Amino acid sequence: MATMKIGILGFGGLGQAAAHILTSKQEMEWVAVADQKGFAYDETGLEVKACQDSYRQQGSVGSLENIGTLSSTSIRDLMRQYPVDGYFLALPNLPNTFMGSVVREFIDAGWQGVLVDALKRTSAMEILLDMREELQAAGITYLTGCGATPGLLTAAATVAAQSYAEIHAVNVTFGVGIANWEAYRATIREDIAHMPGYTVEQAKAMTDEEVAKLLDQTDGILKLENMEHADDLMLELAGICPRDRVSVGGVVDTRNAKKPLSTNVQVTGRTFEGKISTHTFTLGDETSMAANVCGTAFGYLKAGLEFQQRGWSGLLTAADIMPKFVH
Amino acid sequence: MATMKIGILGFGGLGQAAAHILTSKQEMEWVAVADQKGFAYDETGLEVKACQDSYRQQGSVGSLENIGTLSSTSIRDLMRQYPVDGYFLALPNLPNTFMGSVVREFIDAGWQGVLVDALKRTSAMEILLDMREELQAAGITYLTGCGATPGLLTAAATVAAQSYAEIHAVNVTFGVGIANWEAYRATIREDIAHMPGYTVEQAKAMTDEEVAKLLDQTDGILKLENMEHADDLMLELAGICPRDRVSVGGVVDTRNAKKPLSTNVQVTGRTFEGKISTHTFTLGDETSMAANVCGTAFGYLKAGLEFQQRGWSGLLTAADIMPKFVH
Repeated sequence: MATMKIGILGFGGLGQAAAHILTSKQEMEWVAVADQKGFAYDETGLEVKACQDSYRQQGSVGSLENIGTLSSTSIRDLMRQYPVDGYFLALPNLPNTFMGSVVREFIDAGWQGVLVDALKRTSAMEILLDMREELQAAGITYLTGCGATPGLLTAAATVAAQSYAEIHAVNVTFGVGIANWEAYRATIREDIAHMPGYTVEQAKAMTDEEVAKLLDQTDGILKLENMEHADDLMLELAGICPRDRVSVGGVVDTRNAKKPLSTNVQVTGRTFEGKISTHTFTLGDETSMAANVCGTAFGYLKAGLEFQQRGWSGLLTAADIMPKFVH
Repeated sequence: MATMKIGILGFGGLGQAAAHILTSKQEMEWVAVADQKGFAYDETGLEVKACQDSYRQQGSVGSLENIGTLSSTSIRDLMRQYPVDGYFLALPNLPNTFMGSVVREFIDAGWQGVLVDALKRTSAMEILLDMREELQAAGITYLTGCGATPGLLTAAATVAAQSYAEIHAVNVTFGVGIANWEAYRATIREDIAHMPGYTVEQAKAMTDEEVAKLLDQTDGILKLENMEHADDLMLELAGICPRDRVSVGGVVDTRNAKKPLSTNVQVTGRTFEGKISTHTFTLGDETSMAANVCGTAFGYLKAGLEFQQRGWSGLLTAADIMPKFVH
């Protein structure tokens, strides 16, 4: 397989971590990036530090000399003008319609290749699901829900389900520890939106000061239960169980890099002999959200490129295909 | 998808468990079975009890009235004469060349469809690997190593690997508890062949009395280390790590249905940030070997049929594709 030319859409905490990961990969080359205000493209490979400097100091990767372009329609301009095999959509989940509107741009442009997202919310994925036939007709291989949860843990749950005749419950419990929440502003607001008393709109409208004040009240801990996570839709689509048997919750510590608990997924079911049992998949505490999300996303991007080359386009989730290890 | 017509080759402990599992599936119908001395086919579906009675009392499913045929070339005759979408090869792993010789029959017959095995030994899988291009040319979608380990745990390890930039070790440790080893005569001999001081030939040549005597000496416990298991080859083929980083060991209690330890796979690696960590996938103790092996095998058989329908033939392992849940 030739080196895969990879683009990253979004250059916040997730997009920057994704760029870091790609620096050590031989099979993938990071050639394109877009943020809200611009984009950069270099067919010989982008440099993480230069992009970060431009993003932080000048507000956009589009300010990079020679290879950057400032644009208020950065994704559209980048994608229409430059060849890329696949994009990782490291974009905010909010509003729910945002990811769908980006995908619409790709379809309208007649772009062909692989798109991978790490989106979280069921309602955002449902919008993409409605575009399934259009994606297939367009020749786009779109992989959705390919982060950590949904993503890595959903795939593990799909594997685990095989032992059972019927699945009774899939419970995802995550622990996240981040020392510097300011580097994950969008992610933290998405988490807050899952807390009792907050809507998506309210969370998104919060100023940094308001977020800081909330975190002061909770000692930096965000406790989340019965979250709207697309694991439920993905496992239902994969035929594992009805979505109401899937629940996602977790604890986010915004003041410690150490996880407050080990992230895990438990799959409980009944075997063909009538026994009830539970398989458990647990992530090592030392693995960061960035490693679990971005590593998984690129594993699916590689798998997606294989499907694409075989003419298999449309919408797939992390529960549908096996990710490939990227070297 | 229309009901899949499924055959089972081999009707020992594993084949019979597989037949039981299929009775509760709506998506799959069990229409064909072969043992060493005969075969049976019924397009309206076979009955487990009738097949077991015939096998136990008359020595072969081929003795079944109307639907049975006695034959010393049972697999060849069955496969050439009757339409089946996919076969589960619940055959002994020994000798190492046996599975390959069965596959050769399918290729020579011009048979097209899906074949799934749950074989264990690396050397047996290497023989199949040599037939990769022939399988592809023949239009056979062959899925190998699709039991519990290799199989379920290898798939879980593949998913787990995504968090890491490099994999340092994959350790499979299984616990098996069986109350009645006599129902798994071939499997037990395969386990003995992994013990220090035993070759494959010696283990296979043991009489039931000799096996019983050995088990008396060990209180019914078989302790196995550094086993030759194809997880190593499968993970190497999937690009996860060199095979020498994969190790398989376990404890088999032949006198208790309760497992002596929880079967698990641990995947240790280095993240892109340089952190060393370990993900762990643990099977619930109440799940039997039969549930973990056969459930997984049928999950891959279903996935294989989808690949087959899309014209994707050749050799794949449990680490290459995602199993599908069978209803």
